[in-house]
Amino acid sequence: MPRGPLMIIGGAEDKLRRRTILREFVAAAGGPEARIAVIPTASSLGPEVVEVYDALFRREGAAEVVTVRPESREEAQDPDLVEALGKATGIFMTGGNQLKLSSMVCGTPVGDAIVAAHRAGTVVAGTSAGASIQSSHMVAFGVGGTTPKQRMTQVAAGLGLLQSVVIDQHFEQRSRYGRLLMIVAQSPQLLGIGVDEDTAAVVEHEVDEATGTDRDVLRVLGRGAVTVMDGSHIVTNAYEAKRSAPLLASGVVLHVLPEGAAFDLTARALVPPRASVDPSEEAELVEAGKDLRQMARDIAAGDASPSTLKRRQAREAKKSKKSTDHASDRSQDGAPS
Amino acid sequence: MPRGPLMIIGGAEDKLRRRTILREFVAAAGGPEARIAVIPTASSLGPEVVEVYDALFRREGAAEVVTVRPESREEAQDPDLVEALGKATGIFMTGGNQLKLSSMVCGTPVGDAIVAAHRAGTVVAGTSAGASIQSSHMVAFGVGGTTPKQRMTQVAAGLGLLQSVVIDQHFEQRSRYGRLLMIVAQSPQLLGIGVDEDTAAVVEHEVDEATGTDRDVLRVLGRGAVTVMDGSHIVTNAYEAKRSAPLLASGVVLHVLPEGAAFDLTARALVPPRASVDPSEEAELVEAGKDLRQMARDIAAGDASPSTLKRRQAREAKKSKKSTDHASDRSQDGAPS
Repeated sequence: MPRGPLMIIGGAEDKLRRRTILREFVAAAGGPEARIAVIPTASSLGPEVVEVYDALFRREGAAEVVTVRPESREEAQDPDLVEALGKATGIFMTGGNQLKLSSMVCGTPVGDAIVAAHRAGTVVAGTSAGASIQSSHMVAFGVGGTTPKQRMTQVAAGLGLLQSVVIDQHFEQRSRYGRLLMIVAQSPQLLGIGVDEDTAAVVEHEVDEATGTDRDVLRVLGRGAVTVMDGSHIVTNAYEAKRSAPLLASGVVLHVLPEGAAFDLTARALVPPRASVDPSEEAELVEAGKDLRQMARDIAAGDASPSTLKRRQAREAKKSKKSTDHASDRSQDGAPS
Repeated sequence: MPRGPLMIIGGAEDKLRRRTILREFVAAAGGPEARIAVIPTASSLGPEVVEVYDALFRREGAAEVVTVRPESREEAQDPDLVEALGKATGIFMTGGNQLKLSSMVCGTPVGDAIVAAHRAGTVVAGTSAGASIQSSHMVAFGVGGTTPKQRMTQVAAGLGLLQSVVIDQHFEQRSRYGRLLMIVAQSPQLLGIGVDEDTAAVVEHEVDEATGTDRDVLRVLGRGAVTVMDGSHIVTNAYEAKRSAPLLASGVVLHVLPEGAAFDLTARALVPPRASVDPSEEAELVEAGKDLRQMARDIAAGDASPSTLKRRQAREAKKSKKSTDHASDRSQDGAPS
């Protein structure tokens, strides 16, 4: 069984209009068969945070929505909560304070149940704090700003559903370039992943049966972008820069990925986008190809010179005019170009 | 005669306390012999903008400060202004609206006089709008935000003192990552240079007499950082992305450069920083080196085994304790490590 998909949501996912991301999550959890466990531990809000997601997931057609809300490490031992996570076909962690969430669940039976569910193929999603906690190394808190400075931010340990990355959220909206660059400069083996609001990085574990190789592929969904920072070849002074001084961080490779883009986290490389085709350009090329093939035959038979093409194209254009009612005068002037 | 240095200042340079950048400019213009021409055309302020810089440059010891303020392309023909620029040993362009500045001076005798002065070796500095205008391609205006989106910004033509780059200023303070990335995605041959406030990118043209090769080297001065974006190997959809959609910009190489860092604009590579040496570590290594050389001699003479080193080091440590009054007990416990 392959590991389940991860949905790393940058916060403020659309809940009223397009609802692209929440809809995608419910579909991944089984649609009408979905049994969703909501973990609102990060939140400082009361039951209302659960009520909102309960209503949203049911509106998208989920069969069942349960709450798993440990509010201490003691409560995170509760076998009922562990059982609920085991039965879920989708797990959703809300926003709030990721350090509250991680300090209450990581390394407890509830935390272990989330990891086990992911390994067994269950989709695990989280927004804002619930996004941050998914990586092995987690941004605990910090300040905004685009220039990386020493001590802008603190790293804590996350759930580790995704290894060797560090995730940041509300990335564009709270201007978090600097703090993510700081972490990558201090720990270049971590790939920095910054997710904008109303945007999800969907990570799937793919196994190539033929070669036996596997890889994690990140795909982007939603209105903003996912920014990936690769410090593999960084030159930095992060090990000696002074308190709050800007850091040297030279040679960081940046990938800004909008919806539809795919990134191979294992190879740290863009999955080449498929070229988009302009239909009229394509049709024109097909026509020209036909002409050229005919001309090649004519030349081979010794009865045509290259200038024949132009005459033939003019003839074809005339013919095509006769066969349509709305051809303009202009189309008679010459061959298609 | 080599081209003069350029000082590309990100705006809001310190004018009251450290004044690092303005002081450096006056020094580069000749210190007590400096004759400085201030060009305040970008500014919407009245004479006060000139009065401030006049006072600042005189306080730093400049001999003379003159104003060159064309307020139309007509006025930018004035031979007196051209003459003042020709006599100046330093030219300073203030902040304001770079499109006002460029549309009034670029391609006029005043604009040509700035270019000629730079080519003849005169230092040319500019802050904010006066920074933007120095490159061949200039950010005309645009919006903030870290995620690059289509149509965030507009490019106009600058003075072209520096080719193949595009400069942005107030870079961290106004969160201009996105718009600079947009320009690099659309024009990957341009190197994006973002300069923070109270920070200068000082560009010098260096000629290696031996090899005959030349290069432009950017050095950083001031409190913030200079961010360089290299799109040489970019994969992007900027040629087809929809209005205001986030752009794909994959493989951009990022260099965040704090004060003291140097970057070769011609090779698009960091000038390797000199390693900083911890004096105590260095002293220790010198001592150990002496020991090792002595031991090698001893071994060659057949009277020592490797364990001799440890005993010798213990002896040395004791000796050094006797020779100082404040050696701690702990230093007797073993050899330096």
